[in-house]
Amino acid sequence: MRFELYYWPGIQGRGEFIRLALEDAGADYVDVARGRGGVARLERLLEVPARPSFAPPFLRAGKRIIGQTANILLTLGPRIGLAPRSEEDRLWVHQLQLTIADWVQEVHDVHHPISASLYYEEQKTAARRAAADFRAERMPKFFGYFERVIARNAARSGWLAGRRASYADLSLFQMIEGHRYAFPRAMARLERRFPRVIALRDRVAARPRLAAYLASKRRIAFNLHGIFRHYPELDRTRG
Amino acid sequence: MRFELYYWPGIQGRGEFIRLALEDAGADYVDVARGRGGVARLERLLEVPARPSFAPPFLRAGKRIIGQTANILLTLGPRIGLAPRSEEDRLWVHQLQLTIADWVQEVHDVHHPISASLYYEEQKTAARRAAADFRAERMPKFFGYFERVIARNAARSGWLAGRRASYADLSLFQMIEGHRYAFPRAMARLERRFPRVIALRDRVAARPRLAAYLASKRRIAFNLHGIFRHYPELDRTRG
Repeated sequence: MRFELYYWPGIQGRGEFIRLALEDAGADYVDVARGRGGVARLERLLEVPARPSFAPPFLRAGKRIIGQTANILLTLGPRIGLAPRSEEDRLWVHQLQLTIADWVQEVHDVHHPISASLYYEEQKTAARRAAADFRAERMPKFFGYFERVIARNAARSGWLAGRRASYADLSLFQMIEGHRYAFPRAMARLERRFPRVIALRDRVAARPRLAAYLASKRRIAFNLHGIFRHYPELDRTRG
Repeated sequence: MRFELYYWPGIQGRGEFIRLALEDAGADYVDVARGRGGVARLERLLEVPARPSFAPPFLRAGKRIIGQTANILLTLGPRIGLAPRSEEDRLWVHQLQLTIADWVQEVHDVHHPISASLYYEEQKTAARRAAADFRAERMPKFFGYFERVIARNAARSGWLAGRRASYADLSLFQMIEGHRYAFPRAMARLERRFPRVIALRDRVAARPRLAAYLASKRRIAFNLHGIFRHYPELDRTRG
């Protein structure tokens, strides 16, 4: 089946978690909004379906339109070989993905603490305060959590769950890449505390199809419009 | 099976979405942290399991410990008769629940825009700006989305999905109650625009087991420690 991914062009954003899974699996998909007339198609499909999504990304799989990043991956994972076999294990991986979704929202809100509809420049002072807390408290907490999850995986595979990589491992890779881009100084200090997370990141990056994708033009570069943004003042201790 | 719910005592918070489902279903459950020594048990179970949750709420069902509110409801829903039969419909209800989860995070962040680890008083100025945007843009957007979902439900049942109520309907009820508590003035202006949402709320409130729960001491009152907080200055146009 050819999947249709609908997400804003020009940014990695939440769509990237879906792209990484589709690319790693070598799935047949089209990134609709990056093609001609694609944004209009996205906007129409956001509006007209009987079961509309609240926001992109959403995925079209045959007649179904599925929204919410973690829900898309829950549905897609088993079909493309990136989810465990048992129901219980699948819901555990989904739980990890939902925790990543919370983290994604937090990292976005660092540069947009007041409102997503105001410019960064209009909320810069609040963003500096938010960033100081995020770097000091939230980054170590989230990375520490996933370090613990890898350490406690009974399969001792180095992945988050079970013996094989799942879409949640690919998403964790993306979180590290994003934090390295947005907070290089904070990450330089932090990474040595989470060796399992970093080892997992390296194994994901070395997967042949993913490596090919990351080196291709299909991988949009991080930039100042996405979820992860590099504003040097948000990566620096005040003063 | 007796379910064990683990959530901070003293607030409705995210735990309330689980409580509403368990109560409406008449399920056998214990709200562990509200009992003697319960907070210590919660903290231990947050720390020691092979598959730890990032934060409460989490639910113990036999040997399994399940975290993330929407994931708990996805697992619990079919067991207690609050989810549709087919896989496709279940994932649609889950998608709606995930959209509610995003909304919950946003409504929390209105009073804590900078950081959850600072007091409200330390981020009051930012909160006023966040609240103005939330009332003007986000509240109508979220309520409008769910109004549309009810209107487009092919079963024309007045519920979000299919012919029967699901846990997502109970959660939407909770969102209305929360907004009425936190933003009474904004809600007074807004409600008439979303008649289907309000009618759904009334039907949920009239369900016998739920009505009994809401009138009981088990229902914690809204207060200034939860997700929904009533600060009059956040419900008022500036000036």
